[in-house]
Amino acid sequence: MPADPEQGGLSYRDAGVDREATFAAKRFIGEVVRRTHGPEVLSRVGGFGGIFRAPAEGAGAALVASADGVGTKLRVAQMAGIHDTVGQDLVNHCVDDILVEGARPLFFLDYIGMGQLTPGVIEALVLGMADACRLNGCALLGGETAQMPDFYGADEYDLAGFIVGVAPAEPERRPGSHRVRSGDVLVGLASNGFHTNGYSLLRHLFFDRLGWTLDTELPDVGKPLGEVLLTVHRSYLGPLLPLVEAGRVRALAHITGGGIPENLARVIPDELQARVQRSTWAIPGEFEAVMRLGDVAEDEMYRTFNMGVGMILVVSPEDELDVVERLRAAGEDAWGLGIVQARHPGETAVKLL
Amino acid sequence: MPADPEQGGLSYRDAGVDREATFAAKRFIGEVVRRTHGPEVLSRVGGFGGIFRAPAEGAGAALVASADGVGTKLRVAQMAGIHDTVGQDLVNHCVDDILVEGARPLFFLDYIGMGQLTPGVIEALVLGMADACRLNGCALLGGETAQMPDFYGADEYDLAGFIVGVAPAEPERRPGSHRVRSGDVLVGLASNGFHTNGYSLLRHLFFDRLGWTLDTELPDVGKPLGEVLLTVHRSYLGPLLPLVEAGRVRALAHITGGGIPENLARVIPDELQARVQRSTWAIPGEFEAVMRLGDVAEDEMYRTFNMGVGMILVVSPEDELDVVERLRAAGEDAWGLGIVQARHPGETAVKLL
Repeated sequence: MPADPEQGGLSYRDAGVDREATFAAKRFIGEVVRRTHGPEVLSRVGGFGGIFRAPAEGAGAALVASADGVGTKLRVAQMAGIHDTVGQDLVNHCVDDILVEGARPLFFLDYIGMGQLTPGVIEALVLGMADACRLNGCALLGGETAQMPDFYGADEYDLAGFIVGVAPAEPERRPGSHRVRSGDVLVGLASNGFHTNGYSLLRHLFFDRLGWTLDTELPDVGKPLGEVLLTVHRSYLGPLLPLVEAGRVRALAHITGGGIPENLARVIPDELQARVQRSTWAIPGEFEAVMRLGDVAEDEMYRTFNMGVGMILVVSPEDELDVVERLRAAGEDAWGLGIVQARHPGETAVKLL
Repeated sequence: MPADPEQGGLSYRDAGVDREATFAAKRFIGEVVRRTHGPEVLSRVGGFGGIFRAPAEGAGAALVASADGVGTKLRVAQMAGIHDTVGQDLVNHCVDDILVEGARPLFFLDYIGMGQLTPGVIEALVLGMADACRLNGCALLGGETAQMPDFYGADEYDLAGFIVGVAPAEPERRPGSHRVRSGDVLVGLASNGFHTNGYSLLRHLFFDRLGWTLDTELPDVGKPLGEVLLTVHRSYLGPLLPLVEAGRVRALAHITGGGIPENLARVIPDELQARVQRSTWAIPGEFEAVMRLGDVAEDEMYRTFNMGVGMILVVSPEDELDVVERLRAAGEDAWGLGIVQARHPGETAVKLL
């Protein structure tokens, strides 16, 4: 029998955890999640763990896993009351990260830490994740929702995602720095906005310094700030996986926090240097606006934002034209943006020219 | 060139993200993490994704995955300034969750969302996780640390864990409700404290209502409250995996949030009922103290806490004595705590007697 509150007895609800609301949300989540399940999913929703049939290749395959968050882009979603897009952001970010290692996604799990179950919020988050999972051919296999009343305010939450994909076990069949050679060519793929990086700077600039709202129109773009800031970080799986599986991509860099200099450097061997020609693309308006309005140094811009380049491929010089052509045929904005050559002593792995 | 702060230019550091400190922490983490890596780990620390050789059984194996958090036990760690134990809590909780599905852990990834990098905190968290990973024979394959200055206070963080393990693909070789029969016996394994559940109630009671500190001695236990509250949620992998792999365990329930009634119900088929005899064990002092000091109803206690039972096994009646004996020989406190029998219409899946 529950404690009588008038007698001063403590119950879990007094302590801020609403178990009934948690149950209702769990039921809804179960239904949405089930729609992402194919025959490889061996578990029912609601077990202690999600169960997924192991890839048939056995030890000839490698499992590729990554954990990620959305960062402070979440605060923009929370300001706007729009929660499905950050769910998509998270899945796509994870998909792009393991694609860089040559992996096709198998399954995804989420963690939501939140203050209070506001009706609709958790449902929108999970719908966004489930939609993105389906589009990426990936099962939403499980997740945890933690109600932590005095960690998060009433309408606040943090969100983390975890993905597992499959790639060949042999290193020579996966992209990576070990396959990059002097003379290789860099191919850029356009980003579709800020993706999920630089949002602390963006929020500081637009909301704290300039006092803008989500409805203020961003010059150079001509769209409301909220729409620009919540544009979904795209998945590159569709156009890139066929090239990766055909062995046409020697290395891939997903341009996230740290920008081109730090992320491209992760796949450049010690003795080589990636030389990126900035004149090969026009910096999109949203980045120009931030640089000007925030008086941000160009170097800082390149280390904080993707500057219009979402993914960089390293390909052999013979493959460049064909790869670019295939990507364009798939509707991508792709272009040669530099080369890989010998690194001189004291120089950095990536040089912006 | 970085923007000159005196000129009012914005840099990422102004916006509250300290990139240098992040780098230093990343280096340390890399070293600790590497110590958990065996030959199955195919990636270096610092790639876009962690790479792990797929189980040799191929499609004959199932991957079992789970996501979890530590809940508001984290706040106790943050009050105490002790951070390695919650790292261990998280790994062990994840290991226990997939063990319930019959899985041996392969790899673990973490997500840390934090306000500011306080020296030592992230290192302690990762050390705790790495220690627990090693003890559970599991690789700490990757993770994400997100610095989110205005989501979390200076010394605050949230922590999520993701685990992947391997089990046989055939359902009849994994524990679960599908193998539970009328006449089966329930075997309890002692918990070693509150594990990771009920901490909102515990904190509300001890700190808000009673005004205690971490140093106040908890009656019925004779230890400081901080020590009792930070006792590490134990892993049951060692004693249970051999029994699970030998097919001796028909089902397992990890007693977490929702207590015995809700967690045991997850493995009881619709037509059966688990009848738990509360007289078979003595409720440990810490639970007695909470019930008395908080005037918490007994039913609420059983739905919030594990009440001294960390894991419940369902075994065949012929196996009971041998299983209990083996567990005791392995140093476990194990006992028969009830039976499974037909469920009468209108009755619940679990009945506490």
